[in-house]
Amino acid sequence: MIDSRNIKCEISYDGTEFHGFQSQPNHRTVQGEIEKAVSKITKNETNIIYSGRTDAGVHARKQVINFHINNSIPSDKIRKALNSNLPGDIVVLHAEEAPIDFHSRYHVKEKTYRYFLDNHQIPDIFRRRYEWRVPYKLNIEKMNEASHLFIGEHDFTSFSSAKTVKENRVRTIHASDLWVEDGKVIFQITGKGFLYNMVRIIVGTLVDIGRGRMEVKEIEEMFNTKDRGDAGMTAPANGLFLWDVKY
Amino acid sequence: MIDSRNIKCEISYDGTEFHGFQSQPNHRTVQGEIEKAVSKITKNETNIIYSGRTDAGVHARKQVINFHINNSIPSDKIRKALNSNLPGDIVVLHAEEAPIDFHSRYHVKEKTYRYFLDNHQIPDIFRRRYEWRVPYKLNIEKMNEASHLFIGEHDFTSFSSAKTVKENRVRTIHASDLWVEDGKVIFQITGKGFLYNMVRIIVGTLVDIGRGRMEVKEIEEMFNTKDRGDAGMTAPANGLFLWDVKY
Repeated sequence: MIDSRNIKCEISYDGTEFHGFQSQPNHRTVQGEIEKAVSKITKNETNIIYSGRTDAGVHARKQVINFHINNSIPSDKIRKALNSNLPGDIVVLHAEEAPIDFHSRYHVKEKTYRYFLDNHQIPDIFRRRYEWRVPYKLNIEKMNEASHLFIGEHDFTSFSSAKTVKENRVRTIHASDLWVEDGKVIFQITGKGFLYNMVRIIVGTLVDIGRGRMEVKEIEEMFNTKDRGDAGMTAPANGLFLWDVKY
Repeated sequence: MIDSRNIKCEISYDGTEFHGFQSQPNHRTVQGEIEKAVSKITKNETNIIYSGRTDAGVHARKQVINFHINNSIPSDKIRKALNSNLPGDIVVLHAEEAPIDFHSRYHVKEKTYRYFLDNHQIPDIFRRRYEWRVPYKLNIEKMNEASHLFIGEHDFTSFSSAKTVKENRVRTIHASDLWVEDGKVIFQITGKGFLYNMVRIIVGTLVDIGRGRMEVKEIEEMFNTKDRGDAGMTAPANGLFLWDVKY
């Protein structure tokens, strides 16, 4: 049987109750739940392709997946059919027919991540699953200044998990910015690709700068030393959202 | 030893992971957690008084409690000390010295509740713990018109749980309104007192009106028949917030 159709979906998920995106035996994962739902509507076991995995606890405002089917269900029905079969913490925002060779990982042009910090005097308990609570006084101006230093092509070894297996740790960042909105500190970064834990380590470093435990100018040294120990802590997963994926 | 001080606190909690407000053996309750925290800072077992209990799953943007202590800890330190000893889903917003005879239940002037409905075409998964997902097309104008009919003095027997033990089911509502904000449907109601499940049954009835399954004019009949079976379903607890308590 030929898989004659390629369906592209934009999905969103709350990472709180998943062991990450990627399928793992005996664990609840986003991929596992989606493949169950897709298989139900296609009546075939179906593997999905995705723009990239997210770690345990990380959320997605917009993740992109695709899968091949030979079923004739109209694409406008696919969203509703999937949503009826998905748990409450995953939702398909949009589904469409894609060119047969579209690949949601290979064809990514750039990805955007957002990280939310709760820096209120009183914790915002209703957002605690989606923000890192940082009760210290933060110098936002310095954090913003530091955030711009990540733009461009850099060796991000110091800003990636020591567990990273990739040899080439040079990545190109297109945009990196930090601002305050409705009393929340928001960091947003866009680039073609990211290393393991890279955004969370950048956020941990920015918070150290905001607290005055590191200087803005130390960022440049961190690029040079290529030593994970020189950057700040890895910020918790729950503040991080895969925000957008562009093709 | 004389309990010479009376401390009034405004607190907020996320009801999702509590078996309601009121202490129960072997269950995690808001009261239980707060009394543990207060007892830790006073070094005495302390019972709290509260404006009224909320049911399992109901949240509070603002609940008011008070407790008597003989400890000399400054009142501006009490908030911080309690928050250090409370779990992440309860927070003390404000603590102050109150007159010794202040009673957070007896002295209530009025209470306000808010109920949030998610009526988007695509569910807002990040708000699912705080909103009732209602995917049907709703006639907001009719719901708003119906919401006004609850204002004034009425017998709310039809709008209270059949389990209600109170004899007198006449209550006075000062304000009742429904509107759309940022794409969310919000219902707000203010009164001196409420019966068991009353706000949730009113919301269930308003949704039935919005869906066209009941008529606005039927509300008047429901007041007269005094039969729980005549009103709509009990809306889920997770959309309900105790919003404000006035003294």
